[in-house]
Amino acid sequence: MTYLRNVWYVAAWDKEVGADTLLNRTLLDEPVLLFRDDAGTVQALSNRCPHRFAPLHMGRKVEGGVQCPYHGLQFNGQGQCIHNPQGNIPKAAVVKSYPVVEKHSLIWLWMGDAARADAALIPDFSCMDPERSYVAKRYLHVKANYVLETDNIMDLSHIQFLHPGTLGSGAVADAITSVEQKGNTVYSNRQTVGDILPEFLYKQRRLPVGLPVDRWIDVRWDAPASMLLKAGSVATGRPRSEGVENDVVHLFTPETEKTSHYWFSVCNPVSMGEEGAQRAEEFVSGLQRPFTHEDLPMLEAQQAMIGDADFWSLKPVLLAGDAGAVRARRVLDKLIADERKDAETAAHAA
Amino acid sequence: MTYLRNVWYVAAWDKEVGADTLLNRTLLDEPVLLFRDDAGTVQALSNRCPHRFAPLHMGRKVEGGVQCPYHGLQFNGQGQCIHNPQGNIPKAAVVKSYPVVEKHSLIWLWMGDAARADAALIPDFSCMDPERSYVAKRYLHVKANYVLETDNIMDLSHIQFLHPGTLGSGAVADAITSVEQKGNTVYSNRQTVGDILPEFLYKQRRLPVGLPVDRWIDVRWDAPASMLLKAGSVATGRPRSEGVENDVVHLFTPETEKTSHYWFSVCNPVSMGEEGAQRAEEFVSGLQRPFTHEDLPMLEAQQAMIGDADFWSLKPVLLAGDAGAVRARRVLDKLIADERKDAETAAHAA
Amino acid sequence: MTYLRNVWYVAAWDKEVGADTLLNRTLLDEPVLLFRDDAGTVQALSNRCPHRFAPLHMGRKVEGGVQCPYHGLQFNGQGQCIHNPQGNIPKAAVVKSYPVVEKHSLIWLWMGDAARADAALIPDFSCMDPERSYVAKRYLHVKANYVLETDNIMDLSHIQFLHPGTLGSGAVADAITSVEQKGNTVYSNRQTVGDILPEFLYKQRRLPVGLPVDRWIDVRWDAPASMLLKAGSVATGRPRSEGVENDVVHLFTPETEKTSHYWFSVCNPVSMGEEGAQRAEEFVSGLQRPFTHEDLPMLEAQQAMIGDADFWSLKPVLLAGDAGAVRARRVLDKLIADERKDAETAAHAA
Repeated sequence: MTYLRNVWYVAAWDKEVGADTLLNRTLLDEPVLLFRDDAGTVQALSNRCPHRFAPLHMGRKVEGGVQCPYHGLQFNGQGQCIHNPQGNIPKAAVVKSYPVVEKHSLIWLWMGDAARADAALIPDFSCMDPERSYVAKRYLHVKANYVLETDNIMDLSHIQFLHPGTLGSGAVADAITSVEQKGNTVYSNRQTVGDILPEFLYKQRRLPVGLPVDRWIDVRWDAPASMLLKAGSVATGRPRSEGVENDVVHLFTPETEKTSHYWFSVCNPVSMGEEGAQRAEEFVSGLQRPFTHEDLPMLEAQQAMIGDADFWSLKPVLLAGDAGAVRARRVLDKLIADERKDAETAAHAA
Repeated sequence: MTYLRNVWYVAAWDKEVGADTLLNRTLLDEPVLLFRDDAGTVQALSNRCPHRFAPLHMGRKVEGGVQCPYHGLQFNGQGQCIHNPQGNIPKAAVVKSYPVVEKHSLIWLWMGDAARADAALIPDFSCMDPERSYVAKRYLHVKANYVLETDNIMDLSHIQFLHPGTLGSGAVADAITSVEQKGNTVYSNRQTVGDILPEFLYKQRRLPVGLPVDRWIDVRWDAPASMLLKAGSVATGRPRSEGVENDVVHLFTPETEKTSHYWFSVCNPVSMGEEGAQRAEEFVSGLQRPFTHEDLPMLEAQQAMIGDADFWSLKPVLLAGDAGAVRARRVLDKLIADERKDAETAAHAA
Repeated sequence: MTYLRNVWYVAAWDKEVGADTLLNRTLLDEPVLLFRDDAGTVQALSNRCPHRFAPLHMGRKVEGGVQCPYHGLQFNGQGQCIHNPQGNIPKAAVVKSYPVVEKHSLIWLWMGDAARADAALIPDFSCMDPERSYVAKRYLHVKANYVLETDNIMDLSHIQFLHPGTLGSGAVADAITSVEQKGNTVYSNRQTVGDILPEFLYKQRRLPVGLPVDRWIDVRWDAPASMLLKAGSVATGRPRSEGVENDVVHLFTPETEKTSHYWFSVCNPVSMGEEGAQRAEEFVSGLQRPFTHEDLPMLEAQQAMIGDADFWSLKPVLLAGDAGAVRARRVLDKLIADERKDAETAAHAA
């Protein structure tokens, strides 16, 4: 599998990397060490010591960096060796460092050409900025390719079949859907009319349990697999402006070809105070159960059925609801193909 | 590994597929869904939905067929899509269906050319017809190639060494054995004289415990690995007609190259009534323990020793008792070679 | 991975193979059966019966050899079939036998050209001869390549970082080290001055807890991975002759490319009587905990980081302390390369 390189990947929630944390996380098949330097700035290094290949996360934080657990070499946040207990520092004692940015409550990693790592390219998740929102955060590990996760979110018609008792009973046939592309961003919008919600959502949205509602979930996708959902509902027939809407975020990064990291969250404005925080936590907990017990087994079963085959080689039958997912796949495939072409051109020139 | 395709494989006991069962079973490396249609007739489909490759057995029975668990496509027993909740039914929305027959208390599957699937080719296991016999049924999963199982049953001299405390103490040297082939059916017969049986067999056969007996086990093999055993005993020196004989059945189907499905049974005539049923259950339970704790560990250890090697490439030393197993292997190898030749001829002609 | 063939590999402690033991041990990817014949002499055979490939260790000892668990073939310690319950002994009924020697409390196996198997080539571990020493013996299984274990022992500067609370606090910078090679034997010596020992070592050496000591660990390595350590200490500034020294032995044999057998021991002279035995057991137990909980996780993490890559292809950065380990690796690599060249020459001549 070829991964897109010149793009920002989510590596962790900000809170996953505390002051003393040495977080070991495999991303795109590469073992990465995430930690905060003395100034609290997140740093990302290859997790493999260049001496004897010990994993650095098994070591410990020291002043100025991290110390290898095996023979005590120390490296700073830029990957330079700053101490060799056995004498002079060899020139080759360097570990690869990755551009890394903490933004929108997340730690973003750049695994391509460092010269092109521009923080402005990170998609807008300012809905998760700590000064703006309380963000209820969760993490799951998935034994499936990350693009299957994009497919899952971009076609929410599966709610009716996979989540009938937990997330909704929305009649697929009644849904009004639309797909739009602006640049490399894909939008997949979906509204059901006269829908019945799961009980926890009525509570969330302060609506009488059982009230028929108009329900919308508008998804914005950016490569590689970063999705922002505007999810709301209002009494049937009333304008959206009278309803309640939440920002729900789904983010995926490949660990390997067949396993993925999955971060998701629900946000409420800080202006709601403690109640907003509490309701965001309840909402995200309401999501975690079906994600864990209904989506993950399905995604892992899909992956097992696909095995080592290329997705398109299996000639999937396409339905109307696939429009958004297919658009996102096409954008991603094109970005990857462009990178390959660039690399070939560069190789040819050299 | 090349599997024989144009032959009936056992897929399940009849009772394994109830009215609401969606049975997922991998056969010859292919995931198969077995279920009963509205008329109660067993149907067999590829278990992979052609839309997003979800396993259909995770879905549910609906009128006229099964519904995919993920986005709700419905398929009938012939694999045709009969409902798409998102609109028209795409032409390509079809899953592969397999010829399947319920016969002799078993569900038989044909994984080759459907045009050649003739139920008359199923070997005669009418001893298990429900109107004729009570059949005590068992199933085991084995981490070994299915032909090793054929070898095991076709050379029962192993009883002396592998099952001394459970199935018999028959002296191998004293056994009278014979092997015969009629068409593609192989017979491997074995008789011991003055043998001492395990206690449960004396009870089964209403003989005094410890009485020296003449004991016979006559095996009939048909491809791929379907075996009927006539197993009986009589007081030493008396004619077989005075003894008691049971039909014991052993059936194997490859799940993968290195794992197999194993069905076995003991039958008693329905004329014996409740007692026949009870004794068949006791007999089959008496077999299950040594099969599970003595045969399976041996077969799995053999498989581990063989690894990825071709069986014949390891140049097994052949003993007298191997005659039946080797004959069966030769028949199977020839049938597979003939299929390959036919395929090459067809490819050449086209 | 290519293994050195014409060298003595440790296969087991002598006591691992009792009078009735059939020990199954995979060495250099080959399943080997170790047992004692009627005279008590250790024999080593391929563990795979040539008839149906059953593992012989699942069988039982019989007069004159071992009996296969499946169909009862019997083999003597030279691998010749001595009994076939089904009749004549087929000429091909032979299992491979390996030259094997019991020496220095160990069982040594030769996996190369039998004609070259000279017991005089076994490195001198007479410190473990039963008539001379009480030997406290341990065995561990390691999920890492055996040469990583050589690296580990040959550069004990890791004690400071990997074992700070268990084996010592010796300042790496203060260590006096030297490396020497005589023929194919490599010596890696290390001394720390004014060192503080772990408590159990003060007790071992009858020194007041907390006393600053001069501590030495002198390692002798022979291919493939057999190491003898002279480990001692004395009050700082005093001559070694006044101190206490133990023979500590570390021996490794590849099970597979990525897993190893690990035997280690501590010896005390039999002249010390019961006290020497007890103290050797205490010492080896004091080592087992850090070996199990500190070294093994590190070695297994290294192996996971290296994966399928060739060690040198990863271009390890070399530090001063690596001199001994690198020398040992070079000797081993040359011995393996020489064997390959010999094989090519022989193939060319033929």
